[in-house]
Amino acid sequence: NPISSDDDSKKFPTASVTGFFHLDAGWFSQDDLNRATLGDINDGLGFRRARLAAKGFVAEDIQYILEFDFAQSQARFVDVWMQINNTKLGNLRIGRFRQPFGMSELTSVRELPFLERPVTFTQTPFRQTGVMLFDTRPDESGTWAIAGYRFLSDNFGNVFADTGGYGMATRLTRIAFESGENRLVHFGVDYSYNDPGRGNIQLVSTNEIFLAQNPNLGPAGLSVLPIEGVTPFVNTGVLSVDEAQFLNFESAIALGRMAIQGEARWVQALLTSGERALFPGAYAQVRYMLTGEQIPYVKKNGVFGRIDPHSPWTTNGGSGALELVGRVSHIDLNDASIEGRRLTDFTAGLNWYLNANTKFQFNYIHSRLTDLSLGDSEANTFGVRAQLDF
Amino acid sequence: NPISSDDDSKKFPTASVTGFFHLDAGWFSQDDLNRATLGDINDGLGFRRARLAAKGFVAEDIQYILEFDFAQSQARFVDVWMQINNTKLGNLRIGRFRQPFGMSELTSVRELPFLERPVTFTQTPFRQTGVMLFDTRPDESGTWAIAGYRFLSDNFGNVFADTGGYGMATRLTRIAFESGENRLVHFGVDYSYNDPGRGNIQLVSTNEIFLAQNPNLGPAGLSVLPIEGVTPFVNTGVLSVDEAQFLNFESAIALGRMAIQGEARWVQALLTSGERALFPGAYAQVRYMLTGEQIPYVKKNGVFGRIDPHSPWTTNGGSGALELVGRVSHIDLNDASIEGRRLTDFTAGLNWYLNANTKFQFNYIHSRLTDLSLGDSEANTFGVRAQLDF
Amino acid sequence: NPISSDDDSKKFPTASVTGFFHLDAGWFSQDDLNRATLGDINDGLGFRRARLAAKGFVAEDIQYILEFDFAQSQARFVDVWMQINNTKLGNLRIGRFRQPFGMSELTSVRELPFLERPVTFTQTPFRQTGVMLFDTRPDESGTWAIAGYRFLSDNFGNVFADTGGYGMATRLTRIAFESGENRLVHFGVDYSYNDPGRGNIQLVSTNEIFLAQNPNLGPAGLSVLPIEGVTPFVNTGVLSVDEAQFLNFESAIALGRMAIQGEARWVQALLTSGERALFPGAYAQVRYMLTGEQIPYVKKNGVFGRIDPHSPWTTNGGSGALELVGRVSHIDLNDASIEGRRLTDFTAGLNWYLNANTKFQFNYIHSRLTDLSLGDSEANTFGVRAQLDF
Repeated sequence: NPISSDDDSKKFPTASVTGFFHLDAGWFSQDDLNRATLGDINDGLGFRRARLAAKGFVAEDIQYILEFDFAQSQARFVDVWMQINNTKLGNLRIGRFRQPFGMSELTSVRELPFLERPVTFTQTPFRQTGVMLFDTRPDESGTWAIAGYRFLSDNFGNVFADTGGYGMATRLTRIAFESGENRLVHFGVDYSYNDPGRGNIQLVSTNEIFLAQNPNLGPAGLSVLPIEGVTPFVNTGVLSVDEAQFLNFESAIALGRMAIQGEARWVQALLTSGERALFPGAYAQVRYMLTGEQIPYVKKNGVFGRIDPHSPWTTNGGSGALELVGRVSHIDLNDASIEGRRLTDFTAGLNWYLNANTKFQFNYIHSRLTDLSLGDSEANTFGVRAQLDF
Repeated sequence: NPISSDDDSKKFPTASVTGFFHLDAGWFSQDDLNRATLGDINDGLGFRRARLAAKGFVAEDIQYILEFDFAQSQARFVDVWMQINNTKLGNLRIGRFRQPFGMSELTSVRELPFLERPVTFTQTPFRQTGVMLFDTRPDESGTWAIAGYRFLSDNFGNVFADTGGYGMATRLTRIAFESGENRLVHFGVDYSYNDPGRGNIQLVSTNEIFLAQNPNLGPAGLSVLPIEGVTPFVNTGVLSVDEAQFLNFESAIALGRMAIQGEARWVQALLTSGERALFPGAYAQVRYMLTGEQIPYVKKNGVFGRIDPHSPWTTNGGSGALELVGRVSHIDLNDASIEGRRLTDFTAGLNWYLNANTKFQFNYIHSRLTDLSLGDSEANTFGVRAQLDF
Repeated sequence: NPISSDDDSKKFPTASVTGFFHLDAGWFSQDDLNRATLGDINDGLGFRRARLAAKGFVAEDIQYILEFDFAQSQARFVDVWMQINNTKLGNLRIGRFRQPFGMSELTSVRELPFLERPVTFTQTPFRQTGVMLFDTRPDESGTWAIAGYRFLSDNFGNVFADTGGYGMATRLTRIAFESGENRLVHFGVDYSYNDPGRGNIQLVSTNEIFLAQNPNLGPAGLSVLPIEGVTPFVNTGVLSVDEAQFLNFESAIALGRMAIQGEARWVQALLTSGERALFPGAYAQVRYMLTGEQIPYVKKNGVFGRIDPHSPWTTNGGSGALELVGRVSHIDLNDASIEGRRLTDFTAGLNWYLNANTKFQFNYIHSRLTDLSLGDSEANTFGVRAQLDF
């Protein structure tokens, strides 16, 4: 939605406003052992994300975005960066952005086939503040990206530390066996090295649904702490580390109306105690458009993109698009002296796209949790999302 | 202020930016007993509201708004919803919005004839997160709305609770005795049933002026808690309840340049102690445009709308519009074992509309407060507001 | 970036979205005594400012802005005001804005030649909530402004106090010896009287770089307190005062591609103990465009404005503009019984303007600090900023 300037002779800067919201509801059932392990998880309803952004160009090759999220009791930074396109070395991005690591991470949250990214989402640097060089190969047969940043940034893009506090990430993707539009095989590899500024990292995840609220319900209603939400199923706690390395392999098969995608990753933490801890995770998912639309593979970014229904919903007929999705994901945070639990999630989902900008998502998640002390337990979760973006 | 897309072939999504601010100042005088009852109330100046919103359409019949308020030390949710118009059942709204209950509540804060809604404002569910069906009768002779939501949502649209946490609200309005534009009688009835998720509700109100600030004035200046503000005149404290029902009757007479409006409402709380407590409230107000403009009745919403001055203020003459307003309001929060006090407010006001988007408001409020232990006391308040919206 | 209305017959209100961000990094070296005086200052990276604003006109002569800053862990008010232009008395501004005091303060942060304003920035009322009358002389040979406000406002524009809480500020500027465009001498004088609502003021400054972050780095990541950042070099602590007066003299010489600017100011605080404390400060700075651009003097505001590179940076050649800057600044917060330290900063800087909306700034700051108990110490700081605005 670019805004036109009324001074037509002045082409730049441009500015447009974009945004979206995720309104989620979740209902939980836990077996007794799961409740003993995690405590009772409350059902909930709330805005998972509610974002506004201004973006545009200040010159032919210099673009920007300032994006903020107002959900969960505080206005926080999302993407805030400038980007200089087409330098001799590639495109150069400076600011706070998703680091080049992970196919599911680099898929826009506006275009997730499930309510949340898989449990492997905790095994990534994700948004940090730094500098990235990246580009697509001239024949669009792959992408590359390499970034350096200060680590670990807070929710507002800041890092403050004398010793360490640096990291780097890189991603390479290739297309193989292309046989027509959206019919191809994708491979990718990602690596990240991190020396956290305060010597701490933490791996933590819910069972792929996230609901949170400010528990202060009084009319004053202005206090912000603490946040309550879905209890983490797996959690290393805060780890004192000298460094943490992340390695990831991506693969995907695009088959027109169907897409298969999987990643396997490892976090190796060098604890200040001298121990090395290795935390593996993986997921595989399949998507199938019941109504026949293509699941577009975006060559520029090496990820899948937005569904555009053949027959958008209208008051006079038109019913939108339907998609069936399934996923299995796994993470093991037990290693060395760390008992962070092990989780396997099985998810079945249905997505109803009213049009390219409106969808409803339904997820049923069956979770199998292993606690080294308490044993194996199970939980089932039903989640719904309403999403509108512009 | 719709933003035009530079791709003219792509009609949707649209996005426009709107907003407004309320800059208020208030001065208080209290008699000795009032000061003994409430403590000393400081004079104050501050932004009551400062809101920005993006709104538009993503399809012919699907619209949205994301609106946030930055006043009072924290960015909070206002309206965040999507709306599907003209379904077979009516218009369908999903998200966080003002629930269909109360004529003064459904009047936009941009168009309030007084600085604040009457004390009866605490007797309403107001903004909650849920789903609403609503429409105007085909001959525009009335409106209907029914909504279900999770209750009680925080300032960010979230609810988190296993037992209860649901509510519903409905509103019906009818026009009678219509004898020309803005000459009619309005009737309405509203009902709401609520089972609060944490078993708590609280009824609380100032004397119809609200000033608040973050008392941390040091240069660090970044802390957010606690908020100081005008002391509540009436306050039940937090009540443990099994359920709370709200009932309201609306009536209004539109007489062109004059409008009379009143509502009477009751909250019945079923306390967990087994007691039933009944809290009545009511108000009546009259408005008169000294400069002769119509006070428009908006049939689509069943409320009064915006004043558009005949002669907007300009530097070369044009003086805007003037309106005289008066209101009496009453609430009694003493019942069963609850001693929440009883308040009657008498307000006289003058509104100066420079144009349709700029106004200054002046309110003089005489408050009579009854505390069951301490007796009757009085306070007088003078309040000023500067408002600009776009 | 004005937004055109699609209803062309309706000219007002207009709304456009503007914003910018400052991404700063700083590295500190301190001698042993400086570290003993201030503690160890961590290196840091973070967003110093990240602002979005909506601005426009609601009538021919009535304009507005709502501007908020999302950096440093909280959405805070920047400028939020309405302005009625061309009244018989001048332009009238109502709301929260920079009070008319100080040439460096009234220079936009988008156009600062250094990373931060000089240490004298603490000797100013800056943004307060109130009313200002101001205008430019008909022949543009100077400006005048006078404002009244409540004092001391918090980060959200609020003041709440029964006794005192008022202030005023005024600024007069004149142009002398004008000999062509951007070739002139500027003089100015500013005065401000303040009776703080809670009887407190505090003078405090870092060594002209500011980095801060929320230290909570855990995945919950939602807590907002406390903020960590660069330790103040000079700091009176909270002073109990009956009143505080500020006096300032401005002078500047515009020489086309070169500009010299200096101010000297005094804060006189009448302490509640009966003591009078006088805190002087001053700075002088010089700017020189290596690439020959004019440093524009903005007659309307009596400050220097934006650099517009002759040869904006592009991928096909064009290298932007380069500017050398130097500054010496001084503040002495030791007086009466107050031991707030004395600081002198020497700064050398280089600014690279890619185009009118994108720049990188590099500052090297040598700081000499005098603590009355501990003696003289030194620190060196290297700071970098990336700025993009629109």
